[in-house]
Amino acid sequence: MRYELYYWPTIQGRGEYVRLALEDAGADYVDAARRANGMNRMMKMMDASKGTPPFAPPFLKAGKLVIGQTANILLYLGPRLGLAPKAEAQRLWVHQLQLTIADFVVEIHDTHHPLGPTLYYEDQRPSAKKRTGEFWSERVPKFLGYFERLIGASGGPYLNGRRLCYADLSLFQIVEGLRYSFPHNMNRFARKVPHLIALHERVAARPNIKAYLASDRRIPFNEDGIFRHYPVLDR
Amino acid sequence: MRYELYYWPTIQGRGEYVRLALEDAGADYVDAARRANGMNRMMKMMDASKGTPPFAPPFLKAGKLVIGQTANILLYLGPRLGLAPKAEAQRLWVHQLQLTIADFVVEIHDTHHPLGPTLYYEDQRPSAKKRTGEFWSERVPKFLGYFERLIGASGGPYLNGRRLCYADLSLFQIVEGLRYSFPHNMNRFARKVPHLIALHERVAARPNIKAYLASDRRIPFNEDGIFRHYPVLDR
Repeated sequence: MRYELYYWPTIQGRGEYVRLALEDAGADYVDAARRANGMNRMMKMMDASKGTPPFAPPFLKAGKLVIGQTANILLYLGPRLGLAPKAEAQRLWVHQLQLTIADFVVEIHDTHHPLGPTLYYEDQRPSAKKRTGEFWSERVPKFLGYFERLIGASGGPYLNGRRLCYADLSLFQIVEGLRYSFPHNMNRFARKVPHLIALHERVAARPNIKAYLASDRRIPFNEDGIFRHYPVLDR
Repeated sequence: MRYELYYWPTIQGRGEYVRLALEDAGADYVDAARRANGMNRMMKMMDASKGTPPFAPPFLKAGKLVIGQTANILLYLGPRLGLAPKAEAQRLWVHQLQLTIADFVVEIHDTHHPLGPTLYYEDQRPSAKKRTGEFWSERVPKFLGYFERLIGASGGPYLNGRRLCYADLSLFQIVEGLRYSFPHNMNRFARKVPHLIALHERVAARPNIKAYLASDRRIPFNEDGIFRHYPVLDR
């Protein structure tokens, strides 16, 4: 089966969590909206009045199925790509981890858009500074501390021990993104989460991930995505 | 099986989406943290260093399983309570709807907490006013317009036609909560989403829901939850 991933063609964004899973598994897929006429097709699929039109990208076309919501796509792909156990209890657990990562992603986005996604960053900079301060003093320790404890309890190197799951790939992206957005803060914080940093290195060294990161399939970080580097927010 | 729901005992919050499903289905459950010593047990289960400790409430204990994340709990309960189809494609679709509702719930919460969940509302009032304005001009039409179109396309009265699913119960709560928080704005907006308003009435009239809403198992809305009524934000 050739999967079709639909996501904004110029940013990593939420599509990246799906790309990392497809890439690590060596799955047959196309990044559909980056192809000729792909954006048009993407917009049309969202406008559909029948079937299961997604609210927003990313969404995945798998045969006749159209699946929206990042964590839902990974719930579907996980067992098929060998990136999640097949048993229900473990599948729910990995999905729960992914949903907690998704909650954190919203808070990362809100550091530069506290007044809402519809205003420009430039129009909400003082609020962004305030929110980013709270983010690093309260929220990063809470979220990353949670994942750090889980990796420690599992014996590592991954969240569930020796077997990688798609949530590990997403945690890799979180570390990668925080390093890009907040190099100063993340560098200081890193020593508090050694297991997480080790997980990041381990994922980065996986052959398929390494090849992906070096390819032009990986869109570079930029200031339109979720992880943005605004030096004034990184003190 | 007697389910145990764990959630903050004094607010509806995210636990309410689970309560509505359990109540509509007439399931055997206890609202565990509202019982004697329940909060202690809840905090201990989150501190667990083994198993699958949840990041935050709500979580559900179902036999030996402990399941966290609201949408994940509903994914598990849905087919068991007759509130979601059993076939994979339809289960994923209902879950996708629930995840989109969850995204909207975050934005509802952020109207009064744009600078982050760790500061008091009183310390972020000007930002809250700004964010609430964007919320009503941009985000409510986008989210509620999406659900309105889906109900219309299905033929109603519910999201998927004549058969109720747990996402319908959650949409009921969204309408209920927006009416509480923003009576003025919601009253004005209601005429744009007639299908959604009809769905709300239909759910409210379901015998088990009606009995629940009249009982003391339903915690009243208050200014500690997600839906808060601050008149200054409702112009």
